[in-house]
Amino acid sequence: MSQYTLIEAGHGRAFRLATGEHVRIGLPEGSQVADMFAFALPDLEEYLSTEHTRSCTQRLAPVVGEAFYSSRRRPMLAFEEDRSPGTHDLLLSACDQMRYTLLGHAGPHRNCVANMIEALAALGLKASQIPSPVNIFEKVAIGIDGSLVIEPPLAARGDFVVIRALMDLVLVISACPMDIVPTNGPDLRPKAIFVERLDAVA
Amino acid sequence: MSQYTLIEAGHGRAFRLATGEHVRIGLPEGSQVADMFAFALPDLEEYLSTEHTRSCTQRLAPVVGEAFYSSRRRPMLAFEEDRSPGTHDLLLSACDQMRYTLLGHAGPHRNCVANMIEALAALGLKASQIPSPVNIFEKVAIGIDGSLVIEPPLAARGDFVVIRALMDLVLVISACPMDIVPTNGPDLRPKAIFVERLDAVA
Repeated sequence: MSQYTLIEAGHGRAFRLATGEHVRIGLPEGSQVADMFAFALPDLEEYLSTEHTRSCTQRLAPVVGEAFYSSRRRPMLAFEEDRSPGTHDLLLSACDQMRYTLLGHAGPHRNCVANMIEALAALGLKASQIPSPVNIFEKVAIGIDGSLVIEPPLAARGDFVVIRALMDLVLVISACPMDIVPTNGPDLRPKAIFVERLDAVA
Repeated sequence: MSQYTLIEAGHGRAFRLATGEHVRIGLPEGSQVADMFAFALPDLEEYLSTEHTRSCTQRLAPVVGEAFYSSRRRPMLAFEEDRSPGTHDLLLSACDQMRYTLLGHAGPHRNCVANMIEALAALGLKASQIPSPVNIFEKVAIGIDGSLVIEPPLAARGDFVVIRALMDLVLVISACPMDIVPTNGPDLRPKAIFVERLDAVA
């Protein structure tokens, strides 16, 4: 029996995964980016690292059959299935309060960094690092001159990816709250993300 | 009067820079990569972040006239001059012991992460993070399929860059010890790096 969690638009959730467990992460409403973080358990000092993933896979982003790597160069999450156009970003930092302030938003704004911290805290956990996230479904166009442009996701309602834990870890998924630039679609509307645990639940 | 430091091949050095001070970082012998880290002073929790630099500049790497940004999205180092072919990498993690072990090297090997830790310790400082470095002079070719290939640097003897501190900080430069893949040139020979302080020294 699978266990389905709907993460409300703009919010985050954390999930403990034992080695071998796998989850489906997808789009219940429409185009949306899911910021993904992961920390080893019980030692959260080892974390999913985009720079080590690039170094170990020798690619900008892993493809199905490859893995996301930890800060200690260990394969951490297997990328098992991709039922989306396959466009994911490992280049850009997670949005934080300063990002919204710099974009001209006055006052507090929900953000992926705060979502990560809150989601871990809900499980009684705390990370000492804010790693650069894997931005599932995010489309960042790289120009020939090295320019980076955030474009609306190609992914649509029903698209999903499947990842499997290769060590005991806590996975954090944030439904990105961005509503100023088209990270989550041309409608600038943050949407929900679903996370479905695919392993038997007792 | 400037102050010239020759960093021995495979080693690292740290430099305290006050706001406004600038340094030249260059190649006294020939092609070589300089891994650059920076931490704010007195609060080392704020550090030079490649992911925030990409997000803030909307480029894979800053160009002259732009800046390298901190983990708090503040401009940290101004990129003032580039007397090299202009190829620098902000994608790949710093080499560490595990990198050499995975490449088949038996036993300990000098590495940029250990160089950073040692160089900070020599100034009585300690960082709680191992940020992804700015790999000055490193050439990483990005394929149309997203593949990344480390190629010998285009930079040659005498080439240099100039950066200026935009906050009080400690700058760490590691002359990358890589001698297995052609990061530092087709000769696989780690070489020295020079750092020249360009401000008047009392």
